[in-house]
Amino acid sequence: MEAEFLDWLRHRITPDDRLAVAIGDDAAVLSPAHPPASVLCVDTIVDGIDFQLGQHPLSMIGRKGLAINLSDLAAMCATPVAALVSLTVPPTMTLEECKQIYEGLLSLADEYTLTIAGGDFTVASSPLSLSVTLAGTPPDAGTWLRSGAQAGDAIVVTGTLGGSILDKHMSFRPRVAEARTISESCQVHAATDISDGLLRDLGNITQASGLAAHLELDAIPVSPAAELRARESGLPPLEHALADGEDFELLMAISQAEAVSLLEEQPIDCGLNCIGSFHAGNGLHTIDTNGDRQRVEPRGFQHGNHASER
Amino acid sequence: MEAEFLDWLRHRITPDDRLAVAIGDDAAVLSPAHPPASVLCVDTIVDGIDFQLGQHPLSMIGRKGLAINLSDLAAMCATPVAALVSLTVPPTMTLEECKQIYEGLLSLADEYTLTIAGGDFTVASSPLSLSVTLAGTPPDAGTWLRSGAQAGDAIVVTGTLGGSILDKHMSFRPRVAEARTISESCQVHAATDISDGLLRDLGNITQASGLAAHLELDAIPVSPAAELRARESGLPPLEHALADGEDFELLMAISQAEAVSLLEEQPIDCGLNCIGSFHAGNGLHTIDTNGDRQRVEPRGFQHGNHASER
Repeated sequence: MEAEFLDWLRHRITPDDRLAVAIGDDAAVLSPAHPPASVLCVDTIVDGIDFQLGQHPLSMIGRKGLAINLSDLAAMCATPVAALVSLTVPPTMTLEECKQIYEGLLSLADEYTLTIAGGDFTVASSPLSLSVTLAGTPPDAGTWLRSGAQAGDAIVVTGTLGGSILDKHMSFRPRVAEARTISESCQVHAATDISDGLLRDLGNITQASGLAAHLELDAIPVSPAAELRARESGLPPLEHALADGEDFELLMAISQAEAVSLLEEQPIDCGLNCIGSFHAGNGLHTIDTNGDRQRVEPRGFQHGNHASER
Repeated sequence: MEAEFLDWLRHRITPDDRLAVAIGDDAAVLSPAHPPASVLCVDTIVDGIDFQLGQHPLSMIGRKGLAINLSDLAAMCATPVAALVSLTVPPTMTLEECKQIYEGLLSLADEYTLTIAGGDFTVASSPLSLSVTLAGTPPDAGTWLRSGAQAGDAIVVTGTLGGSILDKHMSFRPRVAEARTISESCQVHAATDISDGLLRDLGNITQASGLAAHLELDAIPVSPAAELRARESGLPPLEHALADGEDFELLMAISQAEAVSLLEEQPIDCGLNCIGSFHAGNGLHTIDTNGDRQRVEPRGFQHGNHASER
């Protein structure tokens, strides 16, 4: 099946002038005529952990494999250029099913105007697994890092949070264009994407930046899905917004003044909210309706990524 | 375990000035002060297919995951710069065992002076699987491709072939330095690494270059391991050299004149042999001791890679 799949893929992928050497050689080569794609990340999704085979259309599984990496590039404010795709499928999977996985990925690649530079295909007695490496170009003003937050900065988040497991973790729109739009309106001091849960990912920024964060619980944009999840779980919807993870929204540190302008402007469709601020010190602190402050530990969904963490 | 492993890894990896942003953010960023690492490949190895857990030291499994990618870059005459490593381990595996896998990889990374830019770590009910993406810089004279062979060129191969399964497929030395040395002595018109077997990989060059290949059977450097394998299999040792695969030697097209000089010079320790020539036409043809020519089909070990094929 491997040879058949490869043949199909070679014909399926459209030529792209960002590739000096495309699929079909020992490695791909990015064209020197384009800016270097120096921002690199990789993420692997595995059946039973990141999705459940049989519960989602195969195309959505392929889509997710690429989307989580696009979300990582968005968190760096980088522009996606090329993906390498390593697909491991169980022997029970047909060629047609493998194509469906790839079609979902290719469709999202088209939307985000990135090309497929190559990859790997293995049939093994193993759960379906999809590992995508993404290369992108950094923004002219420099990539966003987790470590740049400044005391006094506002904590700004895109979209709404919580209950992603009900649907969004498969269908979310990586915030690549939104990051670019925000970067045109203001200077983002630090950023990450919310993959492991708001508290955990905010904890990554505070730790990398050597600061404390004050989180205003009333200001957190709780998603309708978090409300639904809360009915099942018995937990408050807010808890789902704080810790569910896989929201794949942008979490940013922006100066108060610029955050105020940005929130007035509301330049992106998914919405922007200011949910707190960074301060000297360390750790995460929640502030409730009464203004009472409480220290909390990062908690949430633990994927166990490193480096190109989600 | 994921968090512990990540902590260990962050401290284990030495800082490298080729990385503007290292492990610990949403993506890695290669330093703009260095030449763009525009040559990209990925390969995944899975327990039961590419190695057998329990039969090899864990460090050798990590080593192989990187080595097969280094072999791909060698086949392009590229210089390795940075790797992204995605490790998926079964729940039975201990932190100590994960470290051992990584140590084998890191040790080879040190030898080949490349840095680890990031990766992903997943515990799943899945066989051990290791997916490595490698980024490298192209040589000044341009990357070697499969498509550049010219009629009249000699077929030149490094090292000896066959019986790799007995040991070499885990312990081979990727021919990165050898490729560079050869490129300094002559112009290589086309190249690939022998991963799927001499016949199959030679078939890839003839197909990409639109040529036929004449293979002189007497000239093929049959390895001692192929002789050993032949005793087990009952097949001729030559058959193992032709079709076993995972030799990870360089297979090149070089003009006859330059090939003669190169073979006289013998500038690399593993040895170089001329095993035939390229001609107008198509397909693979063997020439035996009596000078009889016979058309053969590509056959060998099929991994099912695409793009960054081995």
